[in-house]
Amino acid sequence: MQTLTVNLGERSYPIYIGAGLLAQAELFKRHLAGRQVAIVTNETVAPLYLDSLIASLSGCEITSVVLPDGESFKNWETLQLIFDGMLSARHDRRTTVVALGGGVVGDMAGFAAACYQRGVDFIQVPTTLLSQVDSSVGGKTGINHPLGKNMVGAFYQPKAVVIDTSVLNTLPARELSAGLAEVIKYGLICDKPFLGWLEQNMVALRGLDMPLLAQAIERSCAAKARVVGVDERESGLRATLNLGHTFGHAIETHMGYGVWLHGEAVGAGTAMALEMSTRLGWITAQERDRGLRLLIQAGLPVIPPEEMSQENFLEHMAVDKKVLDGRLRLVLLRRMGEAVVTDEFPREVLDATLNADYRALVARLES
Amino acid sequence: MQTLTVNLGERSYPIYIGAGLLAQAELFKRHLAGRQVAIVTNETVAPLYLDSLIASLSGCEITSVVLPDGESFKNWETLQLIFDGMLSARHDRRTTVVALGGGVVGDMAGFAAACYQRGVDFIQVPTTLLSQVDSSVGGKTGINHPLGKNMVGAFYQPKAVVIDTSVLNTLPARELSAGLAEVIKYGLICDKPFLGWLEQNMVALRGLDMPLLAQAIERSCAAKARVVGVDERESGLRATLNLGHTFGHAIETHMGYGVWLHGEAVGAGTAMALEMSTRLGWITAQERDRGLRLLIQAGLPVIPPEEMSQENFLEHMAVDKKVLDGRLRLVLLRRMGEAVVTDEFPREVLDATLNADYRALVARLES
Repeated sequence: MQTLTVNLGERSYPIYIGAGLLAQAELFKRHLAGRQVAIVTNETVAPLYLDSLIASLSGCEITSVVLPDGESFKNWETLQLIFDGMLSARHDRRTTVVALGGGVVGDMAGFAAACYQRGVDFIQVPTTLLSQVDSSVGGKTGINHPLGKNMVGAFYQPKAVVIDTSVLNTLPARELSAGLAEVIKYGLICDKPFLGWLEQNMVALRGLDMPLLAQAIERSCAAKARVVGVDERESGLRATLNLGHTFGHAIETHMGYGVWLHGEAVGAGTAMALEMSTRLGWITAQERDRGLRLLIQAGLPVIPPEEMSQENFLEHMAVDKKVLDGRLRLVLLRRMGEAVVTDEFPREVLDATLNADYRALVARLES
Repeated sequence: MQTLTVNLGERSYPIYIGAGLLAQAELFKRHLAGRQVAIVTNETVAPLYLDSLIASLSGCEITSVVLPDGESFKNWETLQLIFDGMLSARHDRRTTVVALGGGVVGDMAGFAAACYQRGVDFIQVPTTLLSQVDSSVGGKTGINHPLGKNMVGAFYQPKAVVIDTSVLNTLPARELSAGLAEVIKYGLICDKPFLGWLEQNMVALRGLDMPLLAQAIERSCAAKARVVGVDERESGLRATLNLGHTFGHAIETHMGYGVWLHGEAVGAGTAMALEMSTRLGWITAQERDRGLRLLIQAGLPVIPPEEMSQENFLEHMAVDKKVLDGRLRLVLLRRMGEAVVTDEFPREVLDATLNADYRALVARLES
């Protein structure tokens, strides 16, 4: 087992990474304030891992809340199920919410913990690669609004993140690829050598080579922990973690939550950020193509949905959380391995990026 | 104008108290991070004071959200109206939410600010006596759940509290009395000399003597600011501010939100806390009667609803936020002017309190 730490003063917490951690009762019990535990999971994950988690929490007074699965349920109605379950079972302020699932479960359980009786403890137990390398670390919680993704939420840190790599054995390939989008992101924004490592090992990672996956998770979490430790509430540096996300959120919102997986939308969004950075002259066409190839190797879409017009993108991006004083700010690559958040780009370059022929770009790569 | 400060390190903020402050544009503008402002108010307050506030915010990009009035609307559906309004008008992270209204508006607008894009600034402009002396100060925000009051919310501090005492001129007498319940509370829990002052001035206060009301508000806010500065997240001392509230919340939840005003329920709840403290031998019957007389003088109910059984009370109190490890904790008076939060009371004394004949107690007082 590896242990990393997110350094946030008195709100610091550990990230445990290893195989079989779900069965290690002590890892959980050391972080419980009281005897009550509310496990929040979904109908896909529950049959696979809920019993095992319950066994590790033996002796606790447990309430399990099983949510419907999917981004389209990341809304108030579903969140209400968590409050209903906890209040019916009379959970008090010393209860601990345990999120057992992917990013949607983690975001909702975390937000429920932030709001329940104005705040109770919570522990993240992420069960998808995407949530293990990204969303379970850093305390971003929330739900979607019809007008924008993650528009309602809280910065609320967990007491611990328990990453059991064994659960990846049951993860669908499409979800694994979605998680790799966020892994590649770390290489692009702050860890150029990692890109080479990923190029070498992508086939093995997709083939579920566990030691290599654990390495990828650790390197990703270390990057995330470093950034969050510097800028918890996203006043600056942390926004660079959103490479590809402004374009990606527009795709998710426009297509209907859950039609594209978050990681898939980030994949295509990252392709767009690479293209825009190239058009600005900040990276070369060769560097852009290197990024595109890696995304394709990971099994990700790099072509935005054909039905989305420039206007569709602009409309959805106008409510992005990085917009300030009416100006859209984007995460772009100043160079390979270094991201910036900026509103200093000619409008024509954004328009050209939204209208670029990604299909042709990919065809050229493949020829 | 008087200025008090809530001392919370980098989250410290001023409370301005005075007549006509709504018209003092500078008071607001000094606390705005950006140009956008979302005014949240209700359909009762809007016709009275919205234009005046909008005038003070001239030059800002203003969105007004007018909510239905009443505790029964303090729920997610109404909260959603705030998010809808802000997202439709594309408010960004530098926006400021201004709560113009009573406790319900303040709690909901504050919670909306806590959650909107994971947190934006907000300013409290309380327009009822109750919100001026209590709920606008200290950062408790939230909404009700069918199973319990204020069960979903956040500790989230405003950037400023602007108390314009002139608005009390339009406050219905019933609401004024409700506010006096919280004023009397401060005397009972931490300021015994204040009880004498209130006895002397209660008639004038109910007659809207503005200088005296301003004094009562200032003394109440000073007490609240002191307690919140010591214990922001209610790990100890702050819970004493809930004198009468555990009984009161049970009344509000049981009767249906809004049937009894919050302050009215606190009035009857305080009568019950006085009775229980007497039965425990902590205060004398004469001291209890002094408290009851003051509540009656303020125009408050001191007899719990006849239709509520002991079981009704116990059921609702079991989900109180002060319950820990299954044990009910109550705020009681150790002596006049000193409250404690305790679970150390014989169960029979609680039962006797719930079954006491308050009608007879009051009849004896009046004879």
